Amino acid sequence: MLITSLANPTIKMLRALRQRKARDEQGRYLIEGIRLVAEAIQCNAPLDMLIVAPELLTSAFAHELVANYAATGGRVLTVSAAVFASLAEKEHPQGIAAVGRIEYTALESFPMAQVGWIALVEVADPGNLGTILRTADSAGFSGVILVGATTDPFDPAAVRASMGALFSQRLARADWGHLVAWCRAHGIGLVGSSDRGALDYRTATYPRPLVLALGSEREGLSADQLANCDCVVRIPMRGRSDSLNLAVAAGVLMYEVTRHDDF
Amino acid sequence: MLITSLANPTIKMLRALRQRKARDEQGRYLIEGIRLVAEAIQCNAPLDMLIVAPELLTSAFAHELVANYAATGGRVLTVSAAVFASLAEKEHPQGIAAVGRIEYTALESFPMAQVGWIALVEVADPGNLGTILRTADSAGFSGVILVGATTDPFDPAAVRASMGALFSQRLARADWGHLVAWCRAHGIGLVGSSDRGALDYRTATYPRPLVLALGSEREGLSADQLANCDCVVRIPMRGRSDSLNLAVAAGVLMYEVTRHDDF
Repeated sequence: MLITSLANPTIKMLRALRQRKARDEQGRYLIEGIRLVAEAIQCNAPLDMLIVAPELLTSAFAHELVANYAATGGRVLTVSAAVFASLAEKEHPQGIAAVGRIEYTALESFPMAQVGWIALVEVADPGNLGTILRTADSAGFSGVILVGATTDPFDPAAVRASMGALFSQRLARADWGHLVAWCRAHGIGLVGSSDRGALDYRTATYPRPLVLALGSEREGLSADQLANCDCVVRIPMRGRSDSLNLAVAAGVLMYEVTRHDDF
Repeated sequence: MLITSLANPTIKMLRALRQRKARDEQGRYLIEGIRLVAEAIQCNAPLDMLIVAPELLTSAFAHELVANYAATGGRVLTVSAAVFASLAEKEHPQGIAAVGRIEYTALESFPMAQVGWIALVEVADPGNLGTILRTADSAGFSGVILVGATTDPFDPAAVRASMGALFSQRLARADWGHLVAWCRAHGIGLVGSSDRGALDYRTATYPRPLVLALGSEREGLSADQLANCDCVVRIPMRGRSDSLNLAVAAGVLMYEVTRHDDF
């Protein structure tokens, strides 16, 4: 059955998922485009359904993806091009999306990591968050811990920027005190990043596993939070600027942590 | 004289500067907000005028900035809050903007650099370009060379992301052949970045000065371009992803190039 009405109640619920409030209420989010949907399926990300607009979907690879998903009992919602466009963020939608289920892992359920995790305290920009997920995956980290009032990793901009790393990285939410207690209970090193850090990031010895903590784009980590860290590293600034973009700083530090790994 | 009409011809010309076509035609661009305008003035960036909405501008620092600019013969356009909002990209405009003049430096006029420059080939995203300018400034590079059909460094998103580095970094445009010839004529090392690079970026010896060349977000550098490079480095990828965000990759590489500098 092809859904052609923009006012269809299911479509209205799905369209609302662009907004964080609806994502939080429904516990679901949208994954758009062939590449991301394929990556979600391959990573066994928990999905509610696929949404397909046959008029728009020309890729044979994508059609096979949908057929395989349906063959294993997955639900496929078939919609008109106009209905799909009303859900899509992309200008030229490819005609395939998935509805993912939002799942966070409890810190206590994190399997121990070889390298460690990133903790982001009150990060505001979903593009930064998605980019950090992507880099964490590439650098060999295992997950991202969101502390305090952060932006939503299931925001369409974060999903897009993560380039699929959202489906392979573990995600947790914790308050700062909980994070510190978890690190101490398990012998996990807590390394902060700050322009006031005592250690040049190039000279620090990074414990394993570790949590690398970064503060918000505007404020960084607070003095109390820095005092909880086992060490605080800084990236030298040679020019006029006093800080790096958060995702760039996270990238430089993550690659430094795994610098001596054989990969 | 306070401009209150949205249809004022000067205002219409300035409003058009949001579009690249108008920026290219007028050779001017908009700089918005107290911090960026202050940075532009401090860096002696070439400015046509300031635009001020007294109803919106509450900062004493900004008022002093405007008074000093006017005292040295600078032109100040005074507009109503509604007119200012029609020019502004920010949701809560601070009531100050500047009109900058677009200037590129010819490669041949670049002063020799201690570290070097970044070359971006067909970079598409203005946020990435602005972030790379910001990182170049912080890591100790001197400028960015735009090769081929790249996005506009004077796009509002690039200006914002550069956090003022647009005013301290030199900018050039060149085609690839010109860039290669310039490097050879001046003994400048040309280092490419690619996931097919022969050298792990951690083991490479970086010449001085150098041009660090990165390709577009989608395509990277072409085989021909890679063949022109003195060496090609790669950043190891440990996870599922086959690439990093361009601005993150540029950041990791720029900080590697200056890793052994004493700063």
